Amino acid sequence: MSKFFSYKYKNLTPYTPGEQPKEREYIKLNTNESPFPPSNKAIELAKAELSKLQLYPDPDVKELTALVAQEVGVAKECVIMTNGSDEILNFAFMAYCDNDNPAIFPDISYGFYKVFAEINNIPYKEIPLREDFSVCVDDYIGTKGTVFIANPNAPTGLNLPLTEIERLVKADTNRVVVIDEAYVDFGGDSAVKLVDKYDNLIVTQTFSKSRSMAGARLGFGVANKDIIADLMAIKYSTNPYNVNKMTAAAGVGAILDKEYFTENCRTIIENREWVKGELNKLGFSVTDSKTNFVFAKTDKIDGKKLYLALKDRGVLVRHFDKDKIKEYNRITIGTIKQMQVLINTIKSILEEEK
Amino acid sequence: MSKFFSYKYKNLTPYTPGEQPKEREYIKLNTNESPFPPSNKAIELAKAELSKLQLYPDPDVKELTALVAQEVGVAKECVIMTNGSDEILNFAFMAYCDNDNPAIFPDISYGFYKVFAEINNIPYKEIPLREDFSVCVDDYIGTKGTVFIANPNAPTGLNLPLTEIERLVKADTNRVVVIDEAYVDFGGDSAVKLVDKYDNLIVTQTFSKSRSMAGARLGFGVANKDIIADLMAIKYSTNPYNVNKMTAAAGVGAILDKEYFTENCRTIIENREWVKGELNKLGFSVTDSKTNFVFAKTDKIDGKKLYLALKDRGVLVRHFDKDKIKEYNRITIGTIKQMQVLINTIKSILEEEK
Repeated sequence: MSKFFSYKYKNLTPYTPGEQPKEREYIKLNTNESPFPPSNKAIELAKAELSKLQLYPDPDVKELTALVAQEVGVAKECVIMTNGSDEILNFAFMAYCDNDNPAIFPDISYGFYKVFAEINNIPYKEIPLREDFSVCVDDYIGTKGTVFIANPNAPTGLNLPLTEIERLVKADTNRVVVIDEAYVDFGGDSAVKLVDKYDNLIVTQTFSKSRSMAGARLGFGVANKDIIADLMAIKYSTNPYNVNKMTAAAGVGAILDKEYFTENCRTIIENREWVKGELNKLGFSVTDSKTNFVFAKTDKIDGKKLYLALKDRGVLVRHFDKDKIKEYNRITIGTIKQMQVLINTIKSILEEEK
Repeated sequence: MSKFFSYKYKNLTPYTPGEQPKEREYIKLNTNESPFPPSNKAIELAKAELSKLQLYPDPDVKELTALVAQEVGVAKECVIMTNGSDEILNFAFMAYCDNDNPAIFPDISYGFYKVFAEINNIPYKEIPLREDFSVCVDDYIGTKGTVFIANPNAPTGLNLPLTEIERLVKADTNRVVVIDEAYVDFGGDSAVKLVDKYDNLIVTQTFSKSRSMAGARLGFGVANKDIIADLMAIKYSTNPYNVNKMTAAAGVGAILDKEYFTENCRTIIENREWVKGELNKLGFSVTDSKTNFVFAKTDKIDGKKLYLALKDRGVLVRHFDKDKIKEYNRITIGTIKQMQVLINTIKSILEEEK
């Protein structure tokens, strides 16, 4: 840090993304990427933009916004496209949290929520998950502030039923509830259908996982049009051209190629259920994940030790050094071949542990 | 705006990007885009990323950072890549301005500075340009706060000599000076060579103009490594994957293809000087622009009227409704053919005015 750095950030602890080691080729199951390339339609449309990159992108991202709105079933004034879903989440922290409205989120969830609160100098409160890692909506009802819930949650993978989300949203319509649905396409219940009913709900989603576009940076928010107007004001005051031309075009292709999207989600779900079964057979306890990862532990080997042993053998998973979950590893669902290697590698590690 | 929008932003006035009308085909000379497509090398490298978009980009943007560092002649720890230069500017406002360190910038300059100050709740002071639109460095020396100077300045096009920049930077080494060099490649003096000498200097540049990549969103900052560490902390606390894979690759191609870059800059400068001469002949007074635009007025026709008359005839330029400069229009330098159309159109408008 320099001596010039503002006092506002003296205690800032930036987010730590999953490791991206370059020293060897890993089976990369640590950052919840898709094992499948983007849709050919996405590739084709992005390619067509390359020779026009000298021109600014459309700051309103009109074509893609209209398509996404149609896809999720809302008016186009109810959608904002962003540079990944991290950006829409940051915008929501900026727009709806302040000294009067602290941020409220589970103690075990997407690690970035705390960082967004810190960078924006927003007070925050972490509410413990239940023992079984589920979110207890009653713990949030009656609190004052803006609620952020990842649903399904990460790294637990657990899904909160829509009835519970609705109970939270309608319990206090004078505060905003943000539902972060980065993983919803793998079996979660989307709250998008509640947006027309409640003007205090924001749903965020991403093209990174189910649409194989982590490298393109595309996310979006869905909410009442007045909320979207707020978020657009934030966007036009920080980075109006936040979505570049290639990404916007690839997004259009990804939405149009619904068949590819559906088929990939189906495969991931199938592979996930296979992995769950195999891990159970090996004596792991595995949460009921509705995402593209599983969250698993066993008393046969320490969580961190398993992570390191897997890494040593060329399989990268994600381990969190946090007391409540340090026995667990979060393992991204890849192709069935990758999952077979994973299971066989775990088997051989457990053999050696005996 | 919704009833939920934080009190922090009640008076926020977002930035207004140049218009991008779709209703007809214009000769677009209003947003300082390059008339030339990106380098073939940029296109080729971006294309190679398309089938790998399912993977996250390198958050450190290592390959491109190293190349840019080499290109501008600093260590790689002295460079940060961002999602356009708007992002690096916003980061600098966040990191180095607060209640103790107001932002200080010219009253006529890039309109976004005021918005960055407002969105970050930073007090700011606008210092009037001299009558001839030049920046008077003595007006800044002795002030307290973080200085932002666009050099060359927009929309005036005027360049401040490096000796003046150095005088400003060294006059008070306890405050940060940010030099926004969006237009430097068209004949300005870059302050990058001062970065090794002063730890309170940040230079920002963009790939949008001289490298024909406005649609890809790529900018960067150059500064002492401690400053870069601060800015990286901000980046990792807002959007670690701010630069997507396609843009990073295109950036590498754009840097590698130095010949194309040099040739395009040369052509723009040549066309600019031609336009200056023609406008002078028509009775315009034109500033001594070192950018890819000219800033011109004439007493033969009102600034706004000329803007509207040109638009009506299919030529789009930028007019600012600001008292001090409302007689002027900012006209982007395009191909020589576009410039010929511009001059002929102005001629016919002036004929009708007689």
